[in-house]
Amino acid sequence: MKAENIKKAVQYRKLIDVLLDSNQYADIVLKDGYVINTVTREIYEADVAIKGEYILMVGDASALIGSRTKVENVRGKFVSPGFIDSHMHFESAMLTCTEFSRLSIPTGTTTIVADPHEIGNVLGVHGMQEMIKEAKTLPNQIFFTVPCAVPDAPGLETAGFDVNSSHMEELLNDPYVQGIGEIQSFSNIGPVYENAPELIDDLVAAVSYAESIGKTVEGNAPALFGKELAAHIISGGGHVSCHETTTKEEMMEKLRYGVSVFMREGSSQRNMAECIRAITEEGMDSRRAILVSDDMVPEDLLKDGHMNDIIRRTIAQGVDPVEAIQMGTINPATHFGFKDVGILAPGKRANIAVISNLNEMTIDQVYLNGSLAAESGKLTIDLGSYTYPESVKKSVKRGPVKVEDLHITANGSRARVRSIVAIPFQNLTGAQEFNLNVSGGVVQPCLQQDVLPLIVVERHGRTGNIGKAFLNGFKMQSGAIAESVAHDTHNIIVTGTNYEDMVTAVNRVISMDGGIAMIKDGKVVGDLPLRVGGLITDEMSGQEVSEKIAELTQLAESELGCGIPVPFMHLSFWSLVTSPEWKITDMGLIDVDKFEVLSPVVE
Amino acid sequence: MKAENIKKAVQYRKLIDVLLDSNQYADIVLKDGYVINTVTREIYEADVAIKGEYILMVGDASALIGSRTKVENVRGKFVSPGFIDSHMHFESAMLTCTEFSRLSIPTGTTTIVADPHEIGNVLGVHGMQEMIKEAKTLPNQIFFTVPCAVPDAPGLETAGFDVNSSHMEELLNDPYVQGIGEIQSFSNIGPVYENAPELIDDLVAAVSYAESIGKTVEGNAPALFGKELAAHIISGGGHVSCHETTTKEEMMEKLRYGVSVFMREGSSQRNMAECIRAITEEGMDSRRAILVSDDMVPEDLLKDGHMNDIIRRTIAQGVDPVEAIQMGTINPATHFGFKDVGILAPGKRANIAVISNLNEMTIDQVYLNGSLAAESGKLTIDLGSYTYPESVKKSVKRGPVKVEDLHITANGSRARVRSIVAIPFQNLTGAQEFNLNVSGGVVQPCLQQDVLPLIVVERHGRTGNIGKAFLNGFKMQSGAIAESVAHDTHNIIVTGTNYEDMVTAVNRVISMDGGIAMIKDGKVVGDLPLRVGGLITDEMSGQEVSEKIAELTQLAESELGCGIPVPFMHLSFWSLVTSPEWKITDMGLIDVDKFEVLSPVVE
Repeated sequence: MKAENIKKAVQYRKLIDVLLDSNQYADIVLKDGYVINTVTREIYEADVAIKGEYILMVGDASALIGSRTKVENVRGKFVSPGFIDSHMHFESAMLTCTEFSRLSIPTGTTTIVADPHEIGNVLGVHGMQEMIKEAKTLPNQIFFTVPCAVPDAPGLETAGFDVNSSHMEELLNDPYVQGIGEIQSFSNIGPVYENAPELIDDLVAAVSYAESIGKTVEGNAPALFGKELAAHIISGGGHVSCHETTTKEEMMEKLRYGVSVFMREGSSQRNMAECIRAITEEGMDSRRAILVSDDMVPEDLLKDGHMNDIIRRTIAQGVDPVEAIQMGTINPATHFGFKDVGILAPGKRANIAVISNLNEMTIDQVYLNGSLAAESGKLTIDLGSYTYPESVKKSVKRGPVKVEDLHITANGSRARVRSIVAIPFQNLTGAQEFNLNVSGGVVQPCLQQDVLPLIVVERHGRTGNIGKAFLNGFKMQSGAIAESVAHDTHNIIVTGTNYEDMVTAVNRVISMDGGIAMIKDGKVVGDLPLRVGGLITDEMSGQEVSEKIAELTQLAESELGCGIPVPFMHLSFWSLVTSPEWKITDMGLIDVDKFEVLSPVVE
Repeated sequence: MKAENIKKAVQYRKLIDVLLDSNQYADIVLKDGYVINTVTREIYEADVAIKGEYILMVGDASALIGSRTKVENVRGKFVSPGFIDSHMHFESAMLTCTEFSRLSIPTGTTTIVADPHEIGNVLGVHGMQEMIKEAKTLPNQIFFTVPCAVPDAPGLETAGFDVNSSHMEELLNDPYVQGIGEIQSFSNIGPVYENAPELIDDLVAAVSYAESIGKTVEGNAPALFGKELAAHIISGGGHVSCHETTTKEEMMEKLRYGVSVFMREGSSQRNMAECIRAITEEGMDSRRAILVSDDMVPEDLLKDGHMNDIIRRTIAQGVDPVEAIQMGTINPATHFGFKDVGILAPGKRANIAVISNLNEMTIDQVYLNGSLAAESGKLTIDLGSYTYPESVKKSVKRGPVKVEDLHITANGSRARVRSIVAIPFQNLTGAQEFNLNVSGGVVQPCLQQDVLPLIVVERHGRTGNIGKAFLNGFKMQSGAIAESVAHDTHNIIVTGTNYEDMVTAVNRVISMDGGIAMIKDGKVVGDLPLRVGGLITDEMSGQEVSEKIAELTQLAESELGCGIPVPFMHLSFWSLVTSPEWKITDMGLIDVDKFEVLSPVVE
């Protein structure tokens, strides 16, 4: 028996008194709004009566209004359950949970399922537990789905700490831990089975342990079909999600296979418009269609919102507004087994979004645990600020690198090289070979062909590896960009038009204890320190980070001529070895499907 | 960690091998059928590949067919997940779990959620545990939802044993126990709150304990609306069902309140046709609409089937066949959190119904745990038979009664009496007063007005109470019927056209150690011993019980002139004090809403 069970019992007992004793009343009544019913898929006029942290009832609440009841007239407005983001990483926003929440709560998001595998890759169990500790200080619901395998691809990359089934007991028993997060080490189930079947044994052990204590498991099955998709689902215990589904056909197959499809619609990767066609064109039942952000930058949170914006875009694809809201409320609540949220009904947590314009998803008020938490886009409660302990800072554990360390070498005057091909707004990549000039034994970047060195420097103090490859599609004209955000092991990734600026950028990131650095002609064009694990800042607000990133992005374009949108996020994903086709890690250029390291230069 | 978790892990590991190792194959492939997809609400042609107890995949399974794979051609047939009955009582069929399953499995039901509160009222925790022990011997999935309050109405009736929150630890930790069953003691939440608020404290404690160990709670909220419905839901922990919803308006309100409505469609009470109008007429989302039987007699199981017949009747109300099947598969699986059944998909338990005619729901084959279990309506596996221990027999603990014990007395020659009014196929009753003749101080039955004595004799050896009232609507012409099946405390209930036959009938039930007895002119017209708790026979097959009940029913009509259909089931429900309006217990005539005992004679 946990304290939360007892607390709920005591509070529920009080609710029964208020409902049945005609001398007791609600604390707050939202009067005469249009209630969004996410179970019946209806909208109708009704009151919402609140007592303490919970909803007493939804209907005619006149009898529950006493002299001290606060009556909020919401006539003409829509009253919805608060929204759930079922899969996201705080690290992608570079913000603490607190600063993320400061931007997210006013947009109507009241429940977040966060995956802390970024900080987990850098700092292991301790790093994740420090993030969970922060979340516990906040009034919005934040749950975590933790990785059971770090790094994603053992033998192909180096993380700061390794996580496997032996860590599950320590991690999963926290009540704020919902279960195991995206099992992306097994996205590529075929090659893993072929090359490292022992990883599957360990996964099955972790999953089985999670199930035995009532925890859930999330999948991650980009571009898997048929037998491989089936094997992935079974590896995850049979009831999984996928948040990297990108085509209508994939969406159809996954829904048919019983997968909860987390249609991703974040800052850099937007798959909803394609996925939703399984519903709008094929008429599939949408009960397992769920909207998630995955990765959000603060600028988008500030400018467009969070789940409300994703729901708005879903409505714009022709989905009925209530059905779209189901995808951000009851559908995810059902997937995770959250029984206290997702619908406005008796006994549910009073986490509520009052919407003034349904198609635009304009959020007027937000209630958290029965209290007004935001109004007209502004927080009305004090979240405080949160400072992380030193134990999760100083995570960049290597001395400066020399320019020769980064050189990609070849004989002769021309070399045929292997290049990752950027695909805007996808973390999938292409793979292509190019011919480049060689000078003094060093392969030269080629601006005409848009092919630059792409290098990853291990920074966890474990191997000192430097992995090398090329990149096509970044459209940079001068200088270099380095960052300690490089999925998922978060070594330092760097690209640039010349090796000198690249080494300066890497060393700048090292000296800042992590962050982003842009260098041109040996000088710092701009930088952003991210001292928490080299991923997050606890020194700036969301607004400040947003402005800083906007400034850096603008500088990347104006000073370095970088033509790809959201360049820092794109750069950070080219080291993610769990989605095809070619990626780079500290161990080198990785052929994801073949599970092997390739030389950057074709021999 | 339970053994079942480990077993699943080992079996899942094997499934992954079969899917990814091209030299391994499925055990069985159901080839080229029309698969019913309960998540997407579609029908399409696909194979279902099975390995061991689980489904490997659904799709093109050609690559999984090896030389030893059994290929079953199901072209032109429909392949559905096995059906789930989410709320039923084995006791209503008077059969052991084994004999019920023998009739139910061939009809496609593969999962049963049984509520053992009948045997629990007679024999307490021990009786329920003996039933659970039997269920564990069977290949179909049988889970139990156990009562947290026995009797339903303390102070108004006498059960054999009392059950309350202090028994939850002992009961709920069994892995076959899904949670707490229908909290019908709180159907009448207003009067309970008014008269016995301490019962609510105990309920909240039981519910909270159940939640703390991950168990579920079922509600039971007939005719509750608004604040009382809200209070009932909250009493049950906020996520409950109701299986006594009888009108479209109730259905709408309950679905809107987030209740899973278990549309009851059993042998005696049929509410689906009314409830379904919320979906067929109002277009409500049906995700929380669920079909249940509640009470089935063996004759109906044999003649019409089980969940397949209920689904068939739902289709006949204009519901799309796949949507109707959702109500008996994925909807209940989601309600209970069953992750291994409800859809045909990778990793799910291979519990499958092959249907030859979809609108008629004709069941061709049934697979249980990957093995053929029934074909053309006949079981193909050996279930054995099950004999209960003596500890659950000999449950009728009183000596014979005398005719004077049953007499309802009054002064004068006419008396105004209070009579329960039978409503065919409902366990709700009406309430009406009649004027009857009094002879020798004893109120006389009146065949003209169809008003007979209705008496309950305590049989648990605790109080010796005899409760008295009258009954209108049984349409009996002579003799008496007594039975030890009398919801929910299962004392002996008796009605008749004369006191002499009534006392003979009661004493016959006592001498049989429980059962049903019909007496006319002092002689036994027919009887059925039910020695397990006075509720169930472990001496007859379902077929034999069916024939016996049919014979008794026919005799009730031909010999006693009894004009009400299924008289034994109706009689057994008039002691159920949790649904309005007047009922009878060993303590007397009960005004359910007022929570008080009334005299049978108006003073």
